[in-house]
Amino acid sequence: MDFTICPATLDDCKDISRMILELAEHEKVLDQIKVTQEDLEKDGFIKNPFFHGVVVEVPDEHRSKEGHTKVGYALYFYSYSSWKGRAVYMEDLYVMPEFRGKGIGKALMSKVAQMGLAAGCSLLNFCVLDWNKPSLDFYLSQGCLNTTADMGYQFMRCEGVALEKLAKGGT
Amino acid sequence: MDFTICPATLDDCKDISRMILELAEHEKVLDQIKVTQEDLEKDGFIKNPFFHGVVVEVPDEHRSKEGHTKVGYALYFYSYSSWKGRAVYMEDLYVMPEFRGKGIGKALMSKVAQMGLAAGCSLLNFCVLDWNKPSLDFYLSQGCLNTTADMGYQFMRCEGVALEKLAKGGT
Repeated sequence: MDFTICPATLDDCKDISRMILELAEHEKVLDQIKVTQEDLEKDGFIKNPFFHGVVVEVPDEHRSKEGHTKVGYALYFYSYSSWKGRAVYMEDLYVMPEFRGKGIGKALMSKVAQMGLAAGCSLLNFCVLDWNKPSLDFYLSQGCLNTTADMGYQFMRCEGVALEKLAKGGT
Repeated sequence: MDFTICPATLDDCKDISRMILELAEHEKVLDQIKVTQEDLEKDGFIKNPFFHGVVVEVPDEHRSKEGHTKVGYALYFYSYSSWKGRAVYMEDLYVMPEFRGKGIGKALMSKVAQMGLAAGCSLLNFCVLDWNKPSLDFYLSQGCLNTTADMGYQFMRCEGVALEKLAKGGT
């Protein structure tokens, strides 16, 4: 199947928001999603954007059952390693279920890698859930390293009341 | 002990580079460090910087054995969660050994949390090594969540030949 991958524009935020919700519904975490189409518009398309995106589009004759031609996306942002310098972090990689198995996911990830290399990055980082065995196996097959399994990296999060307390000096 | 925490400037890159190397030497990973003072200068102090930093300074009378008054730093960058929106990632948090136990580390992390909240972030993310029990315990005591232990997040990395292959379409 033909498909094209382009940098996300303001007009893509509606489709990206729809797909974020689709993925969350599938994973039964819909109540966790705070990000709206408007958030994506104002966080990704400002002078110093918090993220960048790439979107997959299929020709109209291959549109989804519901009539969508934007059928996948990846979000990424630039980051930094104090060991290795410029890095790119892939936050999300999604392809609608009926479009899987056609190499679209790999093409999306490849695009993020290209963007990273073009910006002078020597690392691509991302997270995957340990129970998502097909994804984990795919990433390992591409030569990615699981720094949690191999080196003990624990991914930590501070949010809500804990983050506010921390900003006030911690407990 | 009195200390001040300020946003890192171009002039701080020499001290930050020194402390990155100190930490790496302590962890016996000196051969892993590719980042130089010049890299920090050109990656952190451009129009769209790859990172931001904060630096701790002590008064001259409390300078280190080697004569340093910049005795700790944190690096951070803004990031994004497709669930929760704007986030800040703390890449590094370091205090020189002779200045530990005085609340400087907590104050540095507090400053990063403040910067994140001021930029509209609702999450602070970072990694810690599982064998670094004192640090892990400290973060947990501050209300941070270990998403690896609790939810199965694996932190993945792609670099070198694997990254170049991926950018060319993957294997």
